[in-house]
Amino acid sequence: MRFKRAVPLLAALFFATVRASASLAGAVTDYRLDNGLQIVVIEDHRAPVVVQMLWYRAGAADEPPGKSGIAHFFEHLMFKATDDMEAGEFSEAVAANGGSDNAFTSQDYTAYYQRIAADRLELVMRMEADRMRDLLLTSDDIATEREVILEERAQRTDTDPGALAGEQMMATLYMNHPYRIPVIGWRHEVERLGREDALAFYRRYYAPDNAVLVVAGDVVPEEVLELARKYYGPLPPTGGLKARIRPSEPPHLAPRRLTFTDPRVSQPYIRRLYLAPERNHGAQKEAAALTYLAEILGGTGATSVLGRALQFDRQIAVYADAGYSAISLDPDTFGLIVVPVPGVSLQEAEEALDATIARFLQEGVDQDQFDRIRMQIRASEIYALDDVQGIARRYGAALTSGLTIEDVQDWPEVLQSVTPQEVVAAARRLFDANRSVTGWVMPAGEGDSAEVAR
Amino acid sequence: MRFKRAVPLLAALFFATVRASASLAGAVTDYRLDNGLQIVVIEDHRAPVVVQMLWYRAGAADEPPGKSGIAHFFEHLMFKATDDMEAGEFSEAVAANGGSDNAFTSQDYTAYYQRIAADRLELVMRMEADRMRDLLLTSDDIATEREVILEERAQRTDTDPGALAGEQMMATLYMNHPYRIPVIGWRHEVERLGREDALAFYRRYYAPDNAVLVVAGDVVPEEVLELARKYYGPLPPTGGLKARIRPSEPPHLAPRRLTFTDPRVSQPYIRRLYLAPERNHGAQKEAAALTYLAEILGGTGATSVLGRALQFDRQIAVYADAGYSAISLDPDTFGLIVVPVPGVSLQEAEEALDATIARFLQEGVDQDQFDRIRMQIRASEIYALDDVQGIARRYGAALTSGLTIEDVQDWPEVLQSVTPQEVVAAARRLFDANRSVTGWVMPAGEGDSAEVAR
Repeated sequence: MRFKRAVPLLAALFFATVRASASLAGAVTDYRLDNGLQIVVIEDHRAPVVVQMLWYRAGAADEPPGKSGIAHFFEHLMFKATDDMEAGEFSEAVAANGGSDNAFTSQDYTAYYQRIAADRLELVMRMEADRMRDLLLTSDDIATEREVILEERAQRTDTDPGALAGEQMMATLYMNHPYRIPVIGWRHEVERLGREDALAFYRRYYAPDNAVLVVAGDVVPEEVLELARKYYGPLPPTGGLKARIRPSEPPHLAPRRLTFTDPRVSQPYIRRLYLAPERNHGAQKEAAALTYLAEILGGTGATSVLGRALQFDRQIAVYADAGYSAISLDPDTFGLIVVPVPGVSLQEAEEALDATIARFLQEGVDQDQFDRIRMQIRASEIYALDDVQGIARRYGAALTSGLTIEDVQDWPEVLQSVTPQEVVAAARRLFDANRSVTGWVMPAGEGDSAEVAR
Repeated sequence: MRFKRAVPLLAALFFATVRASASLAGAVTDYRLDNGLQIVVIEDHRAPVVVQMLWYRAGAADEPPGKSGIAHFFEHLMFKATDDMEAGEFSEAVAANGGSDNAFTSQDYTAYYQRIAADRLELVMRMEADRMRDLLLTSDDIATEREVILEERAQRTDTDPGALAGEQMMATLYMNHPYRIPVIGWRHEVERLGREDALAFYRRYYAPDNAVLVVAGDVVPEEVLELARKYYGPLPPTGGLKARIRPSEPPHLAPRRLTFTDPRVSQPYIRRLYLAPERNHGAQKEAAALTYLAEILGGTGATSVLGRALQFDRQIAVYADAGYSAISLDPDTFGLIVVPVPGVSLQEAEEALDATIARFLQEGVDQDQFDRIRMQIRASEIYALDDVQGIARRYGAALTSGLTIEDVQDWPEVLQSVTPQEVVAAARRLFDANRSVTGWVMPAGEGDSAEVAR
């Protein structure tokens, strides 16, 4: 039950990005059932294991106004009773058969998966199909799970100043698009979510015509299709689903800033977010260039631009990184973070950050560094082929974020085709201060803050 | 066709606030028709004139996500053809009978009014009732009026840096509530509004059970009621309208800032907005105290706190003001503005502003100034009784913003009951930097800006 956006501080510091990709051509078959269910089968016979992932094209950014958190709330509710199963029976059955299961919610999708012995695929498919439309929800279920989720929010967000600051920054950066709202939901809205809200979300979005089934592992496509027809085939589509067109951003005409002060902050830092384009169907080059940019600016080691300038050459920062995820349905963010060394003010650190970026835009990419990164990307793509679940996840995320199987398969090649000049050109388009928010996160009483924001 | 929020620069500078109120008891009768229409009749026989105002409980903040501007768009469309009238016929008939008519849209309501000889009430009532449900809308109407509105937006907002800066500030201040979206709509969304969007808004909100009819002037309540029964009585209610509960704000945990740079800005200035409570049913004291606060800080003359400190004593500003409107369905804003004299930087001006407020919170209200303002408020309430249209407007705005007739009638007394201590207490609650956004609006290249936001 992971969040794409409710990032705790450490993850924020390390920017869990999708920095690598694999050459995934071949052994992928896809179908569509009459009821609209898209099915992707990825054959991999190295181990007698199968992963079933069911992806719904419904995430936090698809929630009705004022109902934030309902997508993630529903992810929890999917483990309650159906007409055929007791609450909790799903996961117990998976575990009793030696498997594991879980689920996760992002802004753009909600996904459920099980990893189990290949000969138990029918079991998990029967159960997954059962809960797609036949969940029984009692008011007790809602009340209990709401408490669980509020506790989850307390632990992941409300007690974590970095996560809280991140929420405020996203809500400041986005003026119109629902990415401004955290996946876990605003606490005051989660507290009021009820059974009707849950059922409305379920009936609208949990249906075969709004889902992608990804089955990866030691399976034969024909058998998967036969099982899918048997279990998912009879489920009625929800029908009338509109295109996922969300409110989009108006022009951003002014750089924005915030100062987040919290005594629990142990080390002050600067975080900056820019609105950034994402991978789009048939147009992935800009996102590929930004994927390089994140590696060039913030990648590990003394060779990254920020690392070299701020950590090694001038010893201004103890940590500097850049982050970009590339996959989302709508324009996402490109992030920078700098944690200054004690004695260096946030003001000084920010000036050094900006000077470093300005110099990078002027001097361009170091060809040796670029070649190294291109090689690393190629290597990590090949390495990624070893992880069946990771591959399944890659297809599921892409297909619920506006991309196609072809886009997934093209991506490694698009990445390899990027030139240093394209990276700099993408960086110039990206680093528009008007489309940014800068956050200073610091303990109470930091002298820096007084000058800039009272 | 005025906007509450799409404030052009001059209005922003002068904060067109509702700073006065009248003792409005007596001569007010109210009814409710079986179809839900609320009717308020205000007798005033000093001139043979009547004002009909029809208020819909639907404003910009009630628009569906991604459809910004549709409330105001619809205000324009209401002058198109119905089954009984040609396009434009409504206003022509009013003018031909010596009257005038217009309409306006705010975040919380849309209102239509005519001022005409008292014996022509039946005419305007018949026409107003006709267009409540029987509007015919052609695709041509939509296309034509969309161009008109885009031109209106160009003139009022896009060519006015103060208005643009105000939009960016509101969108930055509000993280969740739809008040962040301008009444006239984001241009890119207005460009895509179509006939279906208009009809959906019309069918949902334009109905007797979602409207308040205010008739003021030389009329007898029984006759108004009889006419209303005849023309509005047969109209079917829309039914199933939910309470107007909009997404509300999560905790604001960080002061926010923006720097708006535009070569068209002739004189740089600082504007700050705080989230502020509004008048609520049966609980108007806090808003009354803030009404005083705006007068005390920003009222005209050398006696206002900001004027004295920034204009007269220290000659830091050429202009300083405070603004607060008190009426809205959901929490609104309290604004401050300072235009420094040439040679004084925005940074210096902002420090002087903050020091002045801090001193005010410490020293409290000057009793002489307070007594003067209380007297002025009482006088302006009495003066307001002379303006029948103003009184009608006051009732209409209140009744579509969550207040009752009783609240309107109590308001003058609530205002008179405020104490200096209550003003300071309300100011302390208000001036929470975390619930503010500060904007620096300036021409390109202002040296001030470089330090704070790149």
